[in-house]
Amino acid sequence: MTDAQQFISQIREDREHGASELARTCLDALAKHAGSIEVTSNEALRQQLIGFAQELQSARPTMAAITNLIGEWIAAVERLPGGNVSTLRDDIKSISTTLILASENAASSAAAHAAELVGTGKTVITHSLSSTVVAVFECLVGNVKAIVTESRPPSEGRRLAAKLSELGIETDFISDQQMGLFARRADVALVGADTIAGDGSVINKAGTYLLALAARDQGIPFYVCSESFKRSDHSSVGIVLESHDPAEFNPPRLAHVKSHNVYFDITPPHLVTAWITEHGRQHLDDLTTG
Amino acid sequence: MTDAQQFISQIREDREHGASELARTCLDALAKHAGSIEVTSNEALRQQLIGFAQELQSARPTMAAITNLIGEWIAAVERLPGGNVSTLRDDIKSISTTLILASENAASSAAAHAAELVGTGKTVITHSLSSTVVAVFECLVGNVKAIVTESRPPSEGRRLAAKLSELGIETDFISDQQMGLFARRADVALVGADTIAGDGSVINKAGTYLLALAARDQGIPFYVCSESFKRSDHSSVGIVLESHDPAEFNPPRLAHVKSHNVYFDITPPHLVTAWITEHGRQHLDDLTTG
Repeated sequence: MTDAQQFISQIREDREHGASELARTCLDALAKHAGSIEVTSNEALRQQLIGFAQELQSARPTMAAITNLIGEWIAAVERLPGGNVSTLRDDIKSISTTLILASENAASSAAAHAAELVGTGKTVITHSLSSTVVAVFECLVGNVKAIVTESRPPSEGRRLAAKLSELGIETDFISDQQMGLFARRADVALVGADTIAGDGSVINKAGTYLLALAARDQGIPFYVCSESFKRSDHSSVGIVLESHDPAEFNPPRLAHVKSHNVYFDITPPHLVTAWITEHGRQHLDDLTTG
Repeated sequence: MTDAQQFISQIREDREHGASELARTCLDALAKHAGSIEVTSNEALRQQLIGFAQELQSARPTMAAITNLIGEWIAAVERLPGGNVSTLRDDIKSISTTLILASENAASSAAAHAAELVGTGKTVITHSLSSTVVAVFECLVGNVKAIVTESRPPSEGRRLAAKLSELGIETDFISDQQMGLFARRADVALVGADTIAGDGSVINKAGTYLLALAARDQGIPFYVCSESFKRSDHSSVGIVLESHDPAEFNPPRLAHVKSHNVYFDITPPHLVTAWITEHGRQHLDDLTTG
């Protein structure tokens, strides 16, 4: 297996990182690959890298940020003039760096807008682990409390709780099925997203939909914070929800029983109080006509 | 520790059985105790047993069936004539037997009504493990499919899946946070109850409220099936929701993080399509005016 193949399978198997982080990791890998790949011509360099990029695009179909950022990378690489191999390598690396920075800036900016919308002195309930949501908590340190769900499998809520504890944020940690009960102790529900579908639906870790339902029933707002790179043109109907091996939650093996481990669910737009991107609070029209 | 004290703490610690089963186990223990307790007078027998019964009543505050059935038992024992000790022992045992049978018949009858309401050829999603819900599946064997949640902690959904597998019922087994996603693959949501509060709210294993929310959003009915012994006069506000040691789900130990393990949640009456008891389908008025 080549380094590229190994990296693709690492991205496919990753259960640790959110969509933004993975997308940036992919761009970084493309830059490194541009520097190290052995080729004899400009066109060979370009074609091999674009092939690698396209495979990465399809590695995580539920994560639009990967498809989108790598899509922009491919388009920029295709636009580059010929030049010599060494110049082309540098230009390609610079495209990666620029896009990583754009994604990071967009996420920081989205987080700052979300922090402003949440306000100070609030208790925020969240599900799963989103680097953008962590950035929101960082903006609010000293003025926020958290309720964090375990988020099985693989329980990435545990890592979020650890991050919040490092920040000194007072946090209540609950198993997923207590989400409804604790929603009424929160002022705001806030999550990141893996993808914002064309109809405004939010694809995020399974359980997010339940949190949105509980938020509505308890009368608290449900905010989704993500950089706009996570927007997909597909409607939620066309989006593949990744499934993984049910062994991750150790289900019983029984004759007539089939176990499932769908990682994501779809929160329909009518449950979303606001989508917050680097452009601030978005209305459904902004999202769906953009 | 006496046998009685040991039994009370066993009931308090039980995570295996639903409210109906535990209530019947308590009645059975009272009957056995009536036969074995060493006393010198009628009044001593009666008073010691009633004391034991009252302690059992307060062992599981979230389970109205225990409070109610033992309450009926105490009232019946108080009404018994003096007689000699041996006759009194027999009469008390017979009160237990009668109430156990009444509870079993009520549950069976409720299950039969629920099976009729569900109808044949349906996929039923359920949460937690209720002996009454198992009885509904038994009524529908050959004509029903199931979607069963893990129901952590302690994952009693695993035992339900095993029971359904024994019955040959085709079952999908999911972790709790997939509940929203799978609700739309079901035709009906059906749960048991630990208590039906005075306002029609349903107290049941944490996560039940989330299932009810998902059922409403997906446009499928949400049925609650339980014998009427589970009705409480208290409004849901007055009902204590049991908490257990968070160690049961192995939460992280971190400086600013407090973990919670609330076992039950409250599903408000506006989310319940129908309450089904031994008297058939109940309207909210039937329930709340008693």
